[in-house]
Amino acid sequence: MIENYKFGIIGGDSRQIFCAKSMISNNQKVNMFGFDKADIKCTNTINELIETSKCIILPVPTISEDNIIYSPFSSKVIYLDEIIKLSKDKKIFYGMPSGININDDKLKNIKLYNYAQREDFSILNAIPTSEAAIQIALTERNETLYGCKCLVAGFGHIGKILARILKSMGTDVTVSARKSKDIAWINSLNYRSVYTYDIPDKQKYDIVFNTIPYLIFNKDVIVKSTHENSLVIDLASKPGGVDFSSAKELGIKTIHALALPGKYFPKTAGEIIKNVIYNILKEEENDE
Amino acid sequence: MIENYKFGIIGGDSRQIFCAKSMISNNQKVNMFGFDKADIKCTNTINELIETSKCIILPVPTISEDNIIYSPFSSKVIYLDEIIKLSKDKKIFYGMPSGININDDKLKNIKLYNYAQREDFSILNAIPTSEAAIQIALTERNETLYGCKCLVAGFGHIGKILARILKSMGTDVTVSARKSKDIAWINSLNYRSVYTYDIPDKQKYDIVFNTIPYLIFNKDVIVKSTHENSLVIDLASKPGGVDFSSAKELGIKTIHALALPGKYFPKTAGEIIKNVIYNILKEEENDE
Amino acid sequence: MIENYKFGIIGGDSRQIFCAKSMISNNQKVNMFGFDKADIKCTNTINELIETSKCIILPVPTISEDNIIYSPFSSKVIYLDEIIKLSKDKKIFYGMPSGININDDKLKNIKLYNYAQREDFSILNAIPTSEAAIQIALTERNETLYGCKCLVAGFGHIGKILARILKSMGTDVTVSARKSKDIAWINSLNYRSVYTYDIPDKQKYDIVFNTIPYLIFNKDVIVKSTHENSLVIDLASKPGGVDFSSAKELGIKTIHALALPGKYFPKTAGEIIKNVIYNILKEEENDE
Amino acid sequence: MIENYKFGIIGGDSRQIFCAKSMISNNQKVNMFGFDKADIKCTNTINELIETSKCIILPVPTISEDNIIYSPFSSKVIYLDEIIKLSKDKKIFYGMPSGININDDKLKNIKLYNYAQREDFSILNAIPTSEAAIQIALTERNETLYGCKCLVAGFGHIGKILARILKSMGTDVTVSARKSKDIAWINSLNYRSVYTYDIPDKQKYDIVFNTIPYLIFNKDVIVKSTHENSLVIDLASKPGGVDFSSAKELGIKTIHALALPGKYFPKTAGEIIKNVIYNILKEEENDE
Repeated sequence: MIENYKFGIIGGDSRQIFCAKSMISNNQKVNMFGFDKADIKCTNTINELIETSKCIILPVPTISEDNIIYSPFSSKVIYLDEIIKLSKDKKIFYGMPSGININDDKLKNIKLYNYAQREDFSILNAIPTSEAAIQIALTERNETLYGCKCLVAGFGHIGKILARILKSMGTDVTVSARKSKDIAWINSLNYRSVYTYDIPDKQKYDIVFNTIPYLIFNKDVIVKSTHENSLVIDLASKPGGVDFSSAKELGIKTIHALALPGKYFPKTAGEIIKNVIYNILKEEENDE
Repeated sequence: MIENYKFGIIGGDSRQIFCAKSMISNNQKVNMFGFDKADIKCTNTINELIETSKCIILPVPTISEDNIIYSPFSSKVIYLDEIIKLSKDKKIFYGMPSGININDDKLKNIKLYNYAQREDFSILNAIPTSEAAIQIALTERNETLYGCKCLVAGFGHIGKILARILKSMGTDVTVSARKSKDIAWINSLNYRSVYTYDIPDKQKYDIVFNTIPYLIFNKDVIVKSTHENSLVIDLASKPGGVDFSSAKELGIKTIHALALPGKYFPKTAGEIIKNVIYNILKEEENDE
Repeated sequence: MIENYKFGIIGGDSRQIFCAKSMISNNQKVNMFGFDKADIKCTNTINELIETSKCIILPVPTISEDNIIYSPFSSKVIYLDEIIKLSKDKKIFYGMPSGININDDKLKNIKLYNYAQREDFSILNAIPTSEAAIQIALTERNETLYGCKCLVAGFGHIGKILARILKSMGTDVTVSARKSKDIAWINSLNYRSVYTYDIPDKQKYDIVFNTIPYLIFNKDVIVKSTHENSLVIDLASKPGGVDFSSAKELGIKTIHALALPGKYFPKTAGEIIKNVIYNILKEEENDE
Repeated sequence: MIENYKFGIIGGDSRQIFCAKSMISNNQKVNMFGFDKADIKCTNTINELIETSKCIILPVPTISEDNIIYSPFSSKVIYLDEIIKLSKDKKIFYGMPSGININDDKLKNIKLYNYAQREDFSILNAIPTSEAAIQIALTERNETLYGCKCLVAGFGHIGKILARILKSMGTDVTVSARKSKDIAWINSLNYRSVYTYDIPDKQKYDIVFNTIPYLIFNKDVIVKSTHENSLVIDLASKPGGVDFSSAKELGIKTIHALALPGKYFPKTAGEIIKNVIYNILKEEENDE
C-alpha cells in the first residue's frame, strides 16, 4: 500500500519498539535512536538517524519535560531542539494529545504532524482502552460482568466501544449523553439511555465507567448512583470526572485509569501509531 | 415527562394518525383536521383546531405542491398560508427534509420547528429504513442473507444501523467511507472496510446497499462490484447514488427504495414524529 | 474436499435444481431426470440416469403420494418402486422428515440415507426458516421489530437462531423452555426466559413465534399472552402449537408458516441439501 | 418463588458464604457451620445445625480427602460420616463433579442431590469460566483481543459462551468440533469452524482456548497450530487437553486454568450454587 519510506524513530517506550517491528514486517526501512537500554540496535548519533530518514517519528508523549524527549530506554538525554534543528526537509510525526509549542522560526522546511490529535488515533485507541477497562473490572470484583448493572457516562469513542463489549458480555448497560441526538443513538443501539444531568435521578449501578473529562460525579451524584459494593472506573484524562476525595470518604472503590493502551497493550498501541502515520502518508499521497 | 400540551394535527398520512394515537396514549390532548376520509374525528374548521391548540403539527412532507398541505385523507384542500395566518403565538412543527420557504413577515410571533431536519429524526428513522431494506433484500432474493456478501456504501446513520443488523444476521459486511476516521470506526466495529473510491478495485458483492446521495455507482463501478445475480438497493434520496440506466442495461436488478419508514412502518414513523416533537419541547423547557 | 462422485437427481422442485447447480460449481458430475417442464437438460430415461450415477438423490418430500415421487417439473409420473428396482449397488439419498416405509426385500445392496432426518439438515434449515419468519413479521406489521416484545416459544434449533436475530434487531426477546438447563442457557445468552407452562402468567407480547410442535397456545394462553394487535406466527410442523380457531375467534392475527426454506429461499435450501449429502459422504469416507 | 426453607451450610470456601448471603437476601433462613475462621456466626455444633435445617448444603468439592469435608474456614475437622449419620429425613445437597461414594445403608431416609453434576450447574458456571479466561488472555498478552486469531477447541458449554464473547470483542474466532451437526451449529453462529482432527492442517492461532478434556494438543498439533508468541489456555479439567511438557519444550506459553469460577468470581459462583439448589427444589415441587 504505502510506498517505501525511510522511518527514523527517536525515543519513546515499548510502543515505539512495537511500532518499529510492525513497520519492518511491512518491509519498511526503520532506524532507531534512544533504545540502547532495551538492547535495540540504534544509530550512533541522532544526526545519522535523521540523515538517513525521510520521516522522523517522535513518541507519545513527545516530551517528558520541557525540550526533553520522553525516552525511558535511552541512556542519554535527547533534546527536541536538536532534532528540529537537524530535520530540514523532513516530515516529523509526534504525539502530544495536548499539543506542543514549537517556535515557528525553527520549523521552516519541516512538515509537522501530531498523530495523537487525530480522530483515527483516538478511535483506534478506544479499543485497547476499553479492553483494559474490562480487564480492570474483571480483576477488581468478585462477580462476573454478566448480570451486573453498568453505567457508561459519555458516548464518545470510548463510550461507544466499551458499551458494545459490555452489552455483549451480558451486562445491563446504561449509557449517558447530553444531547437528544446521542440519546437517539444510544437507544438505537439497544442500550438504556439517560441524560447526563439525570444520572442521579435514575438508579444505582454496580459499575460506573466515566469517560467525560470534567466533573460529573460529585458527592451527590456518587451517593445517588452507587451502592457500597460499586466500583467506579474513571477513564477520562486528568483531572477526570470523579470527585475522588468524596468517593474515598464514602467508601466507594474508585480507580483513575489513565493511559491504558500503552500500559496494558503496548504492542497494539505501537501498531496504532504505525497505522495512523500510514493514514497520514496515504492522505498526503491522495492529495498530491 | 412532558407537561400537558394541546396538540393540533393538520394533514398528513397514516403516520400523523399514529402520532396522534401515541400522544393520546401519553394522556396528551390532540385535535385533528384533514382526516375525514380516514373516519377520524376532526374539528369543524382549521380555525377551531388552531384556537384550541398550543402546538400545531404539520406533516412530512409538509406541502405536496406550492402552499398546499400534503393531506391525502382530507376531502378539502388545506392551504399553508391560512394556517400561518391563524397561528399567532403558537408553535408550529413541520417536516420538510429539504426545508421550506416561508415569508418572514408572516411568521411574526410564531415559533417554527422543522422536525425533519433534526439529527434525532434522522437517527430514529434509520431504524425503520434499515428494517425495510432488510425486508426488501429478503423478498427480492431466493437466498438467505446469512452467508451473502454485502456492501453498505456510506457510513452515516442508515449505514451504521444497517451494517449492524446485516452482520448479526451472518452476512459478510463491507462498509465504505471516504475518511480515515470513519474507516477506523468501521474496523473497530468489526466490519470489513473499503475507501469509497476503492470500491471498484476490491470485490464483487451479492447485495449493494447504497446510502450515499450522489453518484457513486456509475457503469464502471457497477460492473466491477456486482455479478449477474447481484441486487442493488439504493436508499439515498433522489437522484440517488446509482446510475439506474446503466444498471438496467447491464441486467443488474436495482431498486430505488425511498421514503421507507412511512411506507413500510407507518406506526413506527408516526411515533418517531411524536418523540422528536417531545424532544424539541423538552429542550425548550430545559433552556428556559 | 469431496472426491468426484456422479450424482443423479430425480424429481423435486427448484431446490433440487439449485442443489444440482451448486454441485456442478464444485466440479461434480450431475445428471437429472424429471425436470423437463423447467427446461433443464435431462437424461432420456430413469434407467440411463441411474446407470451413470453412483449417488441417486431423491427430493424433499420424496413422495407426494404413495409410491409417486414429488416431481412438479416432470411431465411424467415417476415411481419410487421403479427407482429402487434399478438402483442395485447405488447410494440413494432421500428427504422425508417423517420417514418412509420401503419393503426391506427390495433394498438389498442399496444404501439408503434420509438426509431430512439428520440433525445438520435441521440446524442448517433453521437459518432460512428464521429469516423467513423475520420477513413475515416485517411484512405483516406496520411497526419495526426494533422495540417490540417477542416471545419465542421453544428453544430448539429454530428458537436458538431466531432469538439471536431478533435480539440483535433490538427486540425485547423472551424465550420459553421446559427444562431448567435450557432456562439456564437462555439466561446465559442474555434473553429473558420463561418456563413454557408459565407463559400465560407473565406478560403480553407483540409477536409470538411458536416452534413447539404440540398445542401450547390454547384459548386461555392466547388470551393471556397476546393483545388485540399481536401477531402469532406458528413455525411448528402440522398440526402446530396454536389453536387456530380460538385465535381466529379472538381476532388475533395468526399465520401457520410451514416449509419456509423451500418457499422463501429455494437456492439456500438446495445448497443445504447438497451440504448434508456431502457431510454424509465425508463421514463415510472417514469411517472407511 | 421458593417457599421458606431452612438451609444449613456446612463447610466450603467463600462461595458458600456468598451462597448464604444470597439466600438470606431472598428471606431464607440459613444456619452455618465451619466458618469460624472467617468471622461468620456459626451454630455451636453440627448437630444443632442439622436439627434446625431442612436442607443441608455441602460444599464443592465436598471432601478434600476421604471422609473429610473441604472446609478451609473451619478450625475443626468435619467428617462426612457424621453429617450423614445425623441427617435422617433431611435433604443433602453436595457438589462433587466426579461423584462420591457413600455406603447406601447409611443413606436410608436421606435425599441426596449432587448439584455439581447437573447440567444447569455446568451451563451457569460456563459464564464465570469464560470471563476468567478472557481476563487471563487480557492479562497475559501485550495485545488486545480485538484483531487476534483465536481457536476455541470444543463446542460444549464453555466453548459456546467463550466463543460468543470473543467474537463480540472483535477476534477472529475458529471453533472446533468432532461432529458434523456441531460444525453446522458453529457455522450458523457465524464462527469459522474446523473439525477437531483437522486443527493441525488449518492455520496458526494467536490464542488457543482448549475445553476438551483429553489430549488434543500433542507436540505435533501444538507445532502446527501455534507460533512463538501464541498463548495456550487449557480450561479442561485434569489432565487437560494439552501436552504441557511439549509446550514448554517448544517455548509456547501455556496455562492450565482450573476451577476458575471459585477463584475469580466467588460471589457469582456462590449464587450459582444457590440457583441450582433452588432449581432442584422447584423441580421437586412441580413433580409433587
